[in-house]
Amino acid sequence: MQLFLDCLPCLHRQVLEAARQTTDDVAVQSRIMDRAAATLTRRRAYATAPAMAEAMHSIVREETGADDPYRAVKDRDMAAALGLEPMLWEYAATGEDPLTTALKVAATGNVMDSAIYADLDIAGCVTAELDRPFARCDVDALSADLGTARTVLVLGDNAGEAVFDKVLLSRLGEGREVTYAVRGRPIINDATLDDARSVGVDAHATMMSSGCAAPGTILEWCTDEFLALFRDADVVISKGQGNFEALSSVERPVYFLLKAKCAMVAGDLGVAVGDYVFLRRDPD
Amino acid sequence: MQLFLDCLPCLHRQVLEAARQTTDDVAVQSRIMDRAAATLTRRRAYATAPAMAEAMHSIVREETGADDPYRAVKDRDMAAALGLEPMLWEYAATGEDPLTTALKVAATGNVMDSAIYADLDIAGCVTAELDRPFARCDVDALSADLGTARTVLVLGDNAGEAVFDKVLLSRLGEGREVTYAVRGRPIINDATLDDARSVGVDAHATMMSSGCAAPGTILEWCTDEFLALFRDADVVISKGQGNFEALSSVERPVYFLLKAKCAMVAGDLGVAVGDYVFLRRDPD
Repeated sequence: MQLFLDCLPCLHRQVLEAARQTTDDVAVQSRIMDRAAATLTRRRAYATAPAMAEAMHSIVREETGADDPYRAVKDRDMAAALGLEPMLWEYAATGEDPLTTALKVAATGNVMDSAIYADLDIAGCVTAELDRPFARCDVDALSADLGTARTVLVLGDNAGEAVFDKVLLSRLGEGREVTYAVRGRPIINDATLDDARSVGVDAHATMMSSGCAAPGTILEWCTDEFLALFRDADVVISKGQGNFEALSSVERPVYFLLKAKCAMVAGDLGVAVGDYVFLRRDPD
Repeated sequence: MQLFLDCLPCLHRQVLEAARQTTDDVAVQSRIMDRAAATLTRRRAYATAPAMAEAMHSIVREETGADDPYRAVKDRDMAAALGLEPMLWEYAATGEDPLTTALKVAATGNVMDSAIYADLDIAGCVTAELDRPFARCDVDALSADLGTARTVLVLGDNAGEAVFDKVLLSRLGEGREVTYAVRGRPIINDATLDDARSVGVDAHATMMSSGCAAPGTILEWCTDEFLALFRDADVVISKGQGNFEALSSVERPVYFLLKAKCAMVAGDLGVAVGDYVFLRRDPD
């Protein structure tokens, strides 16, 4: 998905949040915002929002020296998600269609994305969000694909969400090899190998770094090992907006599982902002 | 009030809205956003948000040739406000304290500010907003000042709001000369002389242009005639956020009448976002 004009102020606002999360020094925050504004003037150098976001958040790292500015946020989100985990497994066990229910649990984890919902009462809204049905759900296509699939690749998104993903990974793993790919280094609140391991994802899937440090899987920045799996996996499930923005028109079928959080993504998907989507997209 | 880092993405977002309001040509919208981003990199040249907003919206005018990009928005807002006008006079006649009620009507007009509330259901929310009390109201100080005041200057804000202001101007005008000052040229959805006249403000006050084309009364950009009145008027009432941002630390007592719409202004006023305020501020 292209970088929209609407993305520019949104990314600039997000980098201010990241700066404040990392330092109380207003002079440093100002420098970050000035360099970010200069980045906005070079927008044509970035094909997608995740690509520009990577550049923006690199500025925060460079100016503050903090390798993982959202460390505290991720720790808070992961702890909150772990607190909810028993309820998530229980919920998954009671749904009418186990696969749809597992997909819905994993999609609902997407509200753990503090990068956008800075003041979200996480625990309070998860139950309500779980009960919201998908606006679009290609679960029948997935069921058919899983009938013959031996390898499944799931692209993770934010750190807290990884706890929710365990429910889906467990379901997908019945008779298949499942790999969970995460960012190559800390970026915003996205999960890294350490984050995913610390919440126990390794009990349900093989874990792998994509090598990409953008908040979306930009294939040009991924490792050869990841690209081989991305090409050869029987089923690829991509989670979250950032991965969708980076992969919406790649040369293989991909299932996108996300909550549409902004008007640009919702518009591309043909749904309303806030809607949950599980969509198979094939190459043009 | 200073230009905050938070203002930068907000102004950039607002200029995109203005660009889209004015032209469907995406190439022109892109050029406007690029020039606006370049303006962000020169933020130190602007003392306040209204000053940068003026520069931003000048870009829209220059790139589109449209002298009044919010013409249709203002026409819609003024028509909606005129439709509500009988109810406003009725409401003003029934309040316990006529002056507070007139102030509240004028403050509520502030929700007509489509620059921030792009999708607001104007008619639907006015009644509810009228019933929200001021979070802070220095009406006793105003009553005392009005006891001896012979000249009152009211600084207008957006065009639809001017209809609401008639109720206040009428109340202030009992035994006093009242002047209603507006922008020197169209800027966002702010009232100009033509706008104010077209909704009948001239029946309740002398009208004057401040000469300033920013969405806030920046004294350096005002005419000598306006500055003389601003200096000499017995009472000055400034409406809206933009005027507050421009005038929050001037060298004379000013009453500020507004709804705090953003966290920066609310923080400066010590109230919550969404609160109504009528505040007398004196020079330090």
